[in-house]
Amino acid sequence: MDDGYGIRQGEVAIELPAGFDACLYFIGRIRTPWTRREQCPKSAIEARAAGSVCTIEVDPRYQAGLLQVEGFSLLQVLYWMDQARRDLIIQAPRHGRGTLHGTFALRSPVRPNPIAASVVELRKVEGPRLTVVGLDCLDGTPLLDLKPWFESRDEAVGIRGPV
Amino acid sequence: MDDGYGIRQGEVAIELPAGFDACLYFIGRIRTPWTRREQCPKSAIEARAAGSVCTIEVDPRYQAGLLQVEGFSLLQVLYWMDQARRDLIIQAPRHGRGTLHGTFALRSPVRPNPIAASVVELRKVEGPRLTVVGLDCLDGTPLLDLKPWFESRDEAVGIRGPV
Repeated sequence: MDDGYGIRQGEVAIELPAGFDACLYFIGRIRTPWTRREQCPKSAIEARAAGSVCTIEVDPRYQAGLLQVEGFSLLQVLYWMDQARRDLIIQAPRHGRGTLHGTFALRSPVRPNPIAASVVELRKVEGPRLTVVGLDCLDGTPLLDLKPWFESRDEAVGIRGPV
Repeated sequence: MDDGYGIRQGEVAIELPAGFDACLYFIGRIRTPWTRREQCPKSAIEARAAGSVCTIEVDPRYQAGLLQVEGFSLLQVLYWMDQARRDLIIQAPRHGRGTLHGTFALRSPVRPNPIAASVVELRKVEGPRLTVVGLDCLDGTPLLDLKPWFESRDEAVGIRGPV
């Protein structure tokens, strides 16, 4: 329970399937100032506000894929939250006063496929290293993907739903 | 070459690693009106503009994870673009007049880890089925994750970079 990923009252774990359906390559690593979960910013917005600079290191095998990336000011970064358990389907968030939420109603790292998607500000590209602001993950986190982020195309403004 | 994922002039393929680093569970399927790539909307913004209604079907094993999802008007949907090749690192987009881009400077489905992240408008939740607007993928696309999307926290407005 010391890792902070134990089961709290009301939380529900499921039996995960015996096999996997698809697999991933780690294409690099994310370097941040944080080596323990409690040091990390609480959210991407807190990370941006603090202006903490992080480095994304792309493995040499994939470096050619950065061609023209320097032309973008914003990137979407997908990474793998490799320290999170994957079997909780109902969760009681630490600061939620005992309220229970389905995993898909939370952005917790604990989920069947612990993939995070963050939008970051790109400051600099030097060979395989990208200097960015806006990440809130642990040092050494495995990188899955980088994509350009276009505010006008990707943001959700103007599609508010009736719910 | 008929699948549209062949190599065009100037494109570069890499040798992918012999092994994988992490694996995924498909947690459901996405039902859309489109069964061939050329029928799909060109982008999420086109899909939203057209108002095409799609259905996300969550597998029974994970249905409890939808608790409280109905309270959100916007969701981030992660899915697996299972028909895309994964080894192109330099690409010449079909409508790019021969310009070459690194894979990470494109949002093409062709990438080492073909994970898509879309923001959709949630219209209705009925048991394991979510009715949404804003997807542009093929019918039957494997679902990886659903997360609440908060405009104020997730969008990139106000962090424009110096590039």
